[in-house]
Amino acid sequence: MASVDVPVALLGYGTVGAAVNRLLNEQADDIERATGHRLRIVKALVRDLDKDRGFPAGSDVLTTSIDEILADPSITVVAEVMGGVEPAGGYVLDLLRAGKHVVTANKQLVARRGAELFEAASEGGVQLRFEASVCAAIPVIKVLRESLLVANVHRVLGIVNGTTNFMLTQMEVGSTYEEALAEAQRRGFAEADPTDDVTGADAAAKMAILATIAFNSRYELSDVDTIGIDRIDPLDVAAARELDMVIRLVGQARLVDGHVDVRVSPAFVDRHHPLAAVEGAFNAVMLQGDAIREITLEGPGAGGVETASAVIADMASVIGTMGTGFLKNDAVWRSLPRLAPGDATSPYYFHLSVDDRPGVLARVAEALAENSVSIARLRQHQNGEGRAALHVVTHEARQGALHAALETLAALDEVHRPPLPFPVVSDRGFGDFEWE
Amino acid sequence: MASVDVPVALLGYGTVGAAVNRLLNEQADDIERATGHRLRIVKALVRDLDKDRGFPAGSDVLTTSIDEILADPSITVVAEVMGGVEPAGGYVLDLLRAGKHVVTANKQLVARRGAELFEAASEGGVQLRFEASVCAAIPVIKVLRESLLVANVHRVLGIVNGTTNFMLTQMEVGSTYEEALAEAQRRGFAEADPTDDVTGADAAAKMAILATIAFNSRYELSDVDTIGIDRIDPLDVAAARELDMVIRLVGQARLVDGHVDVRVSPAFVDRHHPLAAVEGAFNAVMLQGDAIREITLEGPGAGGVETASAVIADMASVIGTMGTGFLKNDAVWRSLPRLAPGDATSPYYFHLSVDDRPGVLARVAEALAENSVSIARLRQHQNGEGRAALHVVTHEARQGALHAALETLAALDEVHRPPLPFPVVSDRGFGDFEWE
Repeated sequence: MASVDVPVALLGYGTVGAAVNRLLNEQADDIERATGHRLRIVKALVRDLDKDRGFPAGSDVLTTSIDEILADPSITVVAEVMGGVEPAGGYVLDLLRAGKHVVTANKQLVARRGAELFEAASEGGVQLRFEASVCAAIPVIKVLRESLLVANVHRVLGIVNGTTNFMLTQMEVGSTYEEALAEAQRRGFAEADPTDDVTGADAAAKMAILATIAFNSRYELSDVDTIGIDRIDPLDVAAARELDMVIRLVGQARLVDGHVDVRVSPAFVDRHHPLAAVEGAFNAVMLQGDAIREITLEGPGAGGVETASAVIADMASVIGTMGTGFLKNDAVWRSLPRLAPGDATSPYYFHLSVDDRPGVLARVAEALAENSVSIARLRQHQNGEGRAALHVVTHEARQGALHAALETLAALDEVHRPPLPFPVVSDRGFGDFEWE
Repeated sequence: MASVDVPVALLGYGTVGAAVNRLLNEQADDIERATGHRLRIVKALVRDLDKDRGFPAGSDVLTTSIDEILADPSITVVAEVMGGVEPAGGYVLDLLRAGKHVVTANKQLVARRGAELFEAASEGGVQLRFEASVCAAIPVIKVLRESLLVANVHRVLGIVNGTTNFMLTQMEVGSTYEEALAEAQRRGFAEADPTDDVTGADAAAKMAILATIAFNSRYELSDVDTIGIDRIDPLDVAAARELDMVIRLVGQARLVDGHVDVRVSPAFVDRHHPLAAVEGAFNAVMLQGDAIREITLEGPGAGGVETASAVIADMASVIGTMGTGFLKNDAVWRSLPRLAPGDATSPYYFHLSVDDRPGVLARVAEALAENSVSIARLRQHQNGEGRAALHVVTHEARQGALHAALETLAALDEVHRPPLPFPVVSDRGFGDFEWE
């Protein structure tokens, strides 16, 4: 097959866009060897034609008019690297309906408007690829859609936000929350406004996309049960260390008896679990399925060049599958109900600040037992002044049952603060009961 | 695009073949949703028509004649799951030349006869895919060829043999080599004849394939510098533990200044390095490249269903890219020279059994310094009876220089046995010198 020149366009020409252009230029030969085609950026949509660019675009490439891209019949593939939900969303919809394949790095767009976007792709008879929207260069979307085609994935477990993972590893070695955040900002891992990271919103968007692709059922961002890391205090970090665990912001998506459950929250992770070894700003995603047992992908979950690398791989994949019908369908073909929140199960950790007097332990144990929550590990610390801290790790328990038990506990005179539970992530079974 | 029925054939119908047929049947709908096509096994080549099969093939499917597959123009995709270099190799060559796409799970075939096979594929204008030949369901080939298209991968580091990894994790907790091997055989991880695993031959075949694909230059199995785990003794395991390391059979492929170096050997892996966390029969492959920093894939590296899952994904990918020119070229387009063995660099560990008398340490230090090998960590143990053991970890050193130094050391009167060096795998920089 003779080499074919493929004109492509970009929406946005910032850090990622310039990196896409640079890599396309520097590695044009590699791409041609793999696909038989040479990709060339002919248009890039920007707001300001005169801004300085990292890797300059060719003359006449920059434009401020989306119509120049929409109306150009020679452009069949467009990469959206501008970010934001609007105007990016409207542009992408128009491009798909106009029969142009689109590759996007925009997780908020895919998580919030996926249904609309895939419908437009189907209308236009084109592909929408979005590898770079989840964990940058970690190829979790391609692996899920292509390599694990017959794997029946039923669980996705991951650390999908590098900023908070960096902060938590800093807090593990003694930083306060504020120091860890400042350090993440200094190193460029966190934005000036870190809200999306620390509240878990960024991780929730990625988990909504992963759950949708893994289970072939649309999962809305608003359905993800999300708790951020902004509620963690140094006492929790110290408690985790004493239990030989670490705190990580963990996303979990599960398919349980035909019901889907997706949640993001700080979790106590056993130090021997692979997720505990994910250090700094790295991400990791574990995929569990019938035919594969468990496959884990780990790497940098962000970065301009990393994102550009994934965008280009998607463009090459679009070109390499054009006209064959491959991945042209929306991954969503069924509508699975959500698991009722109280029905999700997990082992949990919580601690109680209690009066240190006879009978307290019995009352705590009774409140848990009444709700069918059984204790796996228990540690008691005297805090002086007549107070003690109880650290409790439960066996697998229904969330609803745990919350009921914690409400009972919070109402006890001997208990000083309403306890805050964390799910526990561990591969190890616990013994019947471990008193430490 | 309307659904198209795609007749496919299998070479071999053992554990993997039967699992391919079962998954193709059970998940025909999933495959059709992704590819627009339904795959159906119409022929399966076997030696014995009457043998009992795990998942029975349909009537008239089993055949003992390759010609029935070769001569059937309706069959465009064939999966080779029979194993062995011959007759599998001859069949695959004939199929490719006849214009049929081939998917193979056969690492020995790809590692030994890759050049011939890819030439035949090119002649026939078809694809040869081989995901299942390296680490079963871990999609490292697809990720390298498609996702990391512009990543400029320059290092591949991995644990690619589950049997030996299982044995080493058993030895870590106290088993002897013989006990660990017996346990691996009992659990079905090791064959009755474990030679290929314990000598490193199996890992070497996988590393030759990975190096070839990662660096786009053919690397022959016979070029891989291979040391097995059969030379490890319990003293080494204990020494690793004392240094806060573990012993793993590690494959390394590196591209250094335009030269390729590929080796497999037991290595001392820092306990904080991700490879140290790979437990039991799991595999892990780390890919380092310019645009991605480091991406790690981990999962089960063997198993019938896992292998079948990868074979089916490859068949679907062939169908999804037919006629587009994608991945039709051999990944090899250049011929890079091998790095001279002595020029490979690594930090190393070795121990010396020496007479415990004044001046020994000085002579050891001098022999190393004369060869520009600098010491990073040093531990001394009195063994009683006038002997001592010296445990040495070096900074990054040329292999040639290390061997020269070890020869000098072996010739010293005070040194009792020729020392056996292990490469050290660590992410941590060492301080200038650590005396323990």
